[in-house]
Formats: sequence, C-alpha cells, structure tokens
Amino acid sequence: MAIIVQKFGGTSVADAAKIRRAADRAIAAYEEGYGVVVVASARGKQTDQLIADALELNPNPPKREMDQLISTGEQQTVSLIAMALEAKGYKAISLTGAQIRMMTDGVFSKALILSMDAERIHKHLNKGRIVIVAGFQGIDEDDNVTTLGRGGSDTTAVALAAATGAEKCEIYTDVDGIYTTDPRIFKEAVKLDRISYEEMLEMASLGAGVMHIRAVGFGMRYNVNIHVRNSGNDNEGTLITAEESDMEGVSVSGATIQRDMAKISLIGVDNVPGNAAKVFAHLAKAKVVVNDIIQTEISKEKANLSFMILISDLDAAKVAVEEIKSEVNFDEVFIREDIAEVSVIGVGMRSHYGVAEKMFGALANAKVNIDSITTSEIRISCAVDEDQAEKALKAVCLAFDLDKQPHDRGRC
Amino acid sequence: MAIIVQKFGGTSVADAAKIRRAADRAIAAYEEGYGVVVVASARGKQTDQLIADALELNPNPPKREMDQLISTGEQQTVSLIAMALEAKGYKAISLTGAQIRMMTDGVFSKALILSMDAERIHKHLNKGRIVIVAGFQGIDEDDNVTTLGRGGSDTTAVALAAATGAEKCEIYTDVDGIYTTDPRIFKEAVKLDRISYEEMLEMASLGAGVMHIRAVGFGMRYNVNIHVRNSGNDNEGTLITAEESDMEGVSVSGATIQRDMAKISLIGVDNVPGNAAKVFAHLAKAKVVVNDIIQTEISKEKANLSFMILISDLDAAKVAVEEIKSEVNFDEVFIREDIAEVSVIGVGMRSHYGVAEKMFGALANAKVNIDSITTSEIRISCAVDEDQAEKALKAVCLAFDLDKQPHDRGRC
Repeated sequence: MAIIVQKFGGTSVADAAKIRRAADRAIAAYEEGYGVVVVASARGKQTDQLIADALELNPNPPKREMDQLISTGEQQTVSLIAMALEAKGYKAISLTGAQIRMMTDGVFSKALILSMDAERIHKHLNKGRIVIVAGFQGIDEDDNVTTLGRGGSDTTAVALAAATGAEKCEIYTDVDGIYTTDPRIFKEAVKLDRISYEEMLEMASLGAGVMHIRAVGFGMRYNVNIHVRNSGNDNEGTLITAEESDMEGVSVSGATIQRDMAKISLIGVDNVPGNAAKVFAHLAKAKVVVNDIIQTEISKEKANLSFMILISDLDAAKVAVEEIKSEVNFDEVFIREDIAEVSVIGVGMRSHYGVAEKMFGALANAKVNIDSITTSEIRISCAVDEDQAEKALKAVCLAFDLDKQPHDRGRC
Repeated sequence: MAIIVQKFGGTSVADAAKIRRAADRAIAAYEEGYGVVVVASARGKQTDQLIADALELNPNPPKREMDQLISTGEQQTVSLIAMALEAKGYKAISLTGAQIRMMTDGVFSKALILSMDAERIHKHLNKGRIVIVAGFQGIDEDDNVTTLGRGGSDTTAVALAAATGAEKCEIYTDVDGIYTTDPRIFKEAVKLDRISYEEMLEMASLGAGVMHIRAVGFGMRYNVNIHVRNSGNDNEGTLITAEESDMEGVSVSGATIQRDMAKISLIGVDNVPGNAAKVFAHLAKAKVVVNDIIQTEISKEKANLSFMILISDLDAAKVAVEEIKSEVNFDEVFIREDIAEVSVIGVGMRSHYGVAEKMFGALANAKVNIDSITTSEIRISCAVDEDQAEKALKAVCLAFDLDKQPHDRGRC
C-alpha cells in the first residue's frame, strides 16, 4: 500500500469546519487507495492561550512543564480529526508522540527526533484506519514529553514520511506555496512550482516562513518529496525536491529579507590561532545564534571580526562580549542594531557567472549602501540599513525577474 | 518520609488564583516535612468545552478518541500547578497517567485501575520534588489513553495514597465536607466530622455528590483515611475512615435523596429458576444500571419483579424489556417515571431497633405515600412520588435529628 502523509498546520484546523475540510482531504486520498497518515498541529490560537495561562503563573516556566502543557494542543486536534473521520464513516485512530514512541533527546522545547515506531502506524493502516498523529511532540527516554520547537509539526510529518516509506508528504498551510520572495513586500512575487531542498534550506534559514529548516533538512537527508499546498483551495502548490538538471537554467530562484538583525564587530582582534574559537564558544554558551561571520585582516597582527545575530539575542550577546574581553585582546566593539539582510538564492548560481555583479549593481542603482557581504555556494547576502531593506529587496527582485515564472526569465 | 496526597477538583483549580492557592496548600504540607503528591482534575469548565468541541464534529464520538481528547484537561492543570510551585521556589514535576504507568483495563470512559508505578513517584519525592499527578486518566496495555469516568480523580488520589503508603489523602472540593443530608433541601443539615466507609458508600451511591463511590470503595479496601476539605477555607472537613465503636452510638448518620429515577415492574413473571438471571442479563447487555431490585411472589407460580433505574437509562431499558419478553413469560409491564428515593444510612442501624418504624412513621405523619421499600444492613430506602420527595426528606431528617451533631442527638 502506498502511503501519503498529510500535515495540517494550526490555521488549517482552527475550527470545526476546517477540521472537516482536513478530514475530507484525508478521505479523498484514502479513496484513491493510499494508506493515509495525517499529522496535525494545535488548533489556531490554542498554543498562544496555553502559553498565556503559563506565564500568568510563572514568568519563566520550566521548559519540561511547558512541553507537558502545550503538547496537549496537538493531542486535542488529532482526537477531534479522528472523530470527524468516524462521523463521515471512516475508521480512524489518533496517536500522540508517546503512542508512536517518537523518541527524542531530552532538550525540552527544541528536541531532536531519534527514532519512532513506524510498525505501529503500519499496523493501523493495514486495518484500514486513517492514522492521525500529533505533530510537534515526542518523548525522551524517561517518558517526559518533549516538543520539537518551531516548525516541529512539519518535521514530524517529514520524519514520518521517511520512516513509513511514504510516497508523498503534503504540507497544508494557509498560502499557495513557496514564492520567489515575500509577496507582502514585493507584490509581483510569483509562486514556484518546484524548488530544490538546498534552495529551500537557504530561504528557510533566511526567514521565509512557510517551511521550517529542520523539516527541509530531514526531507533532503531521506529524499522525501515535500509538497506545500494551500488547505483552502486545490491549487498546485510547490514541490520541494532534489535538485534537477533543468533547475540550473535559472540563476536565482528566490530572494529573502531578514529583519531585526544586529551586527557586532570586534575591531582590532589579536590575530592568533584560537581567538575566533574562544569568541564563538562564549556566544554559544550564552545561547546566541550567530548568523554570518566575517573576518578580515587589517594588519599583520590584527583582524576585524564581525557577526550577525538576532536583535532578540543582543542583550545576551553583550554579556558574552564582556566575558570574551577577559580572554581575547581587541581594541573596541562596534554594534549596529539597525541591520537587515537581503539575499538571493539559487542552485543555478553554481554554474552562472555575474550573479553577484548583477545584485550589487541593482543595489547601487537603488542607492542602497551595502554594509557587508557574505556568500555561500548558492546564496549571496548583503547587510543593509533596516530602513533601506524593502527598497533593496524590490530592486533585487526586479533585477532577477522574480516577478516572472522561471521559464519566462531572461538569463543572467 | 511520610507521604500526603492532596486532590484538587476542577473548581479548586479553575483559574490562576485558585491554582496558586492549591500550590500553597502543597507547600504548607511540604514545609511540614511531608512528601507531597498532588492530584488534579481539569480546570473548571475545560472538560465541558472539549466535549462541546467533540460533539460539534461527531454527535456520537468514539469513546477512545473522547478519552484521548478530554485527558488533555488534567495534563494542562498538572503542568500549570508545577509551574506555580516552581515560581514559588519549590521543585515540582507533573506526571500524566501514562508517565506513572497508571495501567487500566481497556474500557474507555470508565476504565478500572489495575496497577501503577509508585516507584516512579517515590523517586521524585526523594529528590525533594512535589509530584503533581493528572487525575482521572490511565493507559491500557496498548498505550491507549483511558479515563476512569465520573469521580475518577478522587479514585486516582485514593489509589495513589494506597500505592505509595500515604499517611493522609486530602480531597479538596468546594464544600466543607459531608453533610447529614443535602443542605439545599434541608437547610438545617450539619456537617459530619467523621463518617465510616460503609456509610459513605451508601450515601455516595444514593446521590450525595461529594465523593465518588469507587474512590470510597478503594479507600475502604486499602484502609486509606480520606479527608474531605474545602479548598477555599481551613475548616476541619470530614474524615472518611474505618468504622469505630463510638460511631455505633448513633443510629442514622445521614439521609439522601435520589431523583430522576424510574421504576419498571414486570407483573406476573413465571417464577422458575433462571428467569431473574435472564432479565438482568438483558439489562446489563443494554448497559442499564439497576439500583434496587424487589421481587415478591404473588402466587405459587407467579411473582412481581420490580427494579429502579435512572430516567436517563429508561429508553435502553424499554428496548431490553422487549427482548426479555421473548425469553421470559410475564403478564404485563408497569413503568413509573416519577419516582424518587429517600434513604437513611447509618452503621449504628446494625445495633439499634426501631429505625424503620421511626422512618415510616415520619413519612406517614408527613402524608407521604411509600411506593416501595428496600433495605440493606445499614440503609433503609423508600421510593416515593417525585413531587413528595423533598417533603419526605425533611420529615425524615427531623425525625432522626439530622440538624444536630451526632453527640447532641436523642437515641432512637
């Protein structure tokens, strides 16, 4: 029996009508002959309400208890979906993370999946049941409830698809798919029919909110085709899949903007082996997520070391920098709190020349000053002033024809 | 370390302020040196809301899914209580039914407890933690979530007290304790300081709503002292305990009223061995709970067989009676839907004469007609017209001095 995994996010199960619609999608796949596994998130604003309830009692609630609390949201959704399916005359069973032995490590609020009992799911499928699994949750070796963190239900769905050998993994959400860039900023953005895992990973990590990076990484590792679709219509959506040769015809698939960044520069760092390691060890200890790192020598003995972080981590980073001072010699610290990052992404970059030149040219024409530049094999990012960021994104999108479908674009 | 179990019902944890108050009670016991195990129900109207959500999707939801759904209510409460305790500087851990391996049979919505892992609780207590356990829930051998049915959290608390060898089991509720009768009907009713398990069992099964019969039965079997107290004050409450010799000085401890009853009489049943068994087998199959059974011979070959049921079971009972007709010969069926039952209860009845006479006399003086009478060793029940039931209860209460503390009452 071919298996399909269908994941419904919180907005797609927010009320009874939407739960029925999700049930209908599962039924349609069941009637096509699939073994159907549904993964669901908590309904609409349920998680927010639970978090508010928690904070009223404890402004800094223990993470174990927070996971124990908010995991109830998904448990409610899956039992309700099972009831909706039974009401329509189909056999269904809901399963929590504990019930499918979704084993994770013990890092509450952002646990990593270690293994799961796919056999249990097959057993129910073989009895003709539609299986509904609570997303976002697992248990550790002591039976504590854990949650997978932001985007966790996507990860559950992709991991389940991998573990059950599913033919398809559909992610239902409230948008039509993956766009070339954020349509709220560049309204001419177009939806992509396909995107490679690598491009999606870069876009996800740079703030395109549709799919979470961990789920995409899981999909890439286990080669799960991830089909992002709108739960409110029957549009085609976007297939996240392995890179195919014709994707290389296009140099840039999408562009992203990441706001609320800060840039910390350590000026005149003694350029001796081990100093960079010490700096980032302190930042890691302070749980500061560091994005781009730029180091350049300014003399034979000195270098400037810069890194981008989220504004929300700035206070923690400042404390870490104070600690760094005691171990690493440098002249001064320079902090910019008004930074955004605009990026272009495309696997085609590997085989196309001139992408950087076109990007910098577009920014120059738009009179956007570039603070710093970082690149990866399939990405170019420019840090710019926060208040110039939208203008910069639009200029870049127009330069790379991101208002057109890939096959209608000019070549770089 | 002496262990105390404290159970808080839904009204006692309905909002943040009440959860904090429950936490304070746990802390007070902890500071006295107890190992503290808290058992909690779902907050206020949470369960009702979940049931409404379910019925919107399925007017007849599968019981397994219903248990999966509503068990989230207790899980939320216990994690919130743990957070409240941590906020006050105490170590706490919440545990679900699954996490303490509260094993039950697989009868969803009214499962029976088979065993639990008390060791797990001791382990946490020994680490100085206050342990908060979700009431009302367990799991079956296939890891399905089960619930214990009405009063299930009381049963969880008493079972935990038995399994952990607790010194005390406090049941916090929204009343001051067990009263001689329902104060809403007989406003002079007085609160009892102590009551025996046997008396409480009779009162619970006859509709005194404070404690559930299963919890009391568990307490009696394992000799757990159950202390019913008001979560809103520090009043003394009522201790449910083993019968003590001085309890026998009083003939009647309390009186109850059970409304919404129906009485079904099978008139002229062939009085041959096995007929009664057939009748009640059919009723059991239809899941009709039968209260009192009265059979009397009316001739050498014929008998009348009556039984009391809840009005809510009447439709099912009527269907069962039709099936009974095909196996058991009788002349006619007579159904009364307007019946209530007034009872007096007291272990002292065993050694006192004249209780029945005094009860019937009180009802006669009040001009209440008695439809039928049943008795047990410590109970006398009279079925009366529903619209005469309150008058009957008041008359009986006054006859047995139930407006006075036991030591102030006259002897029977």
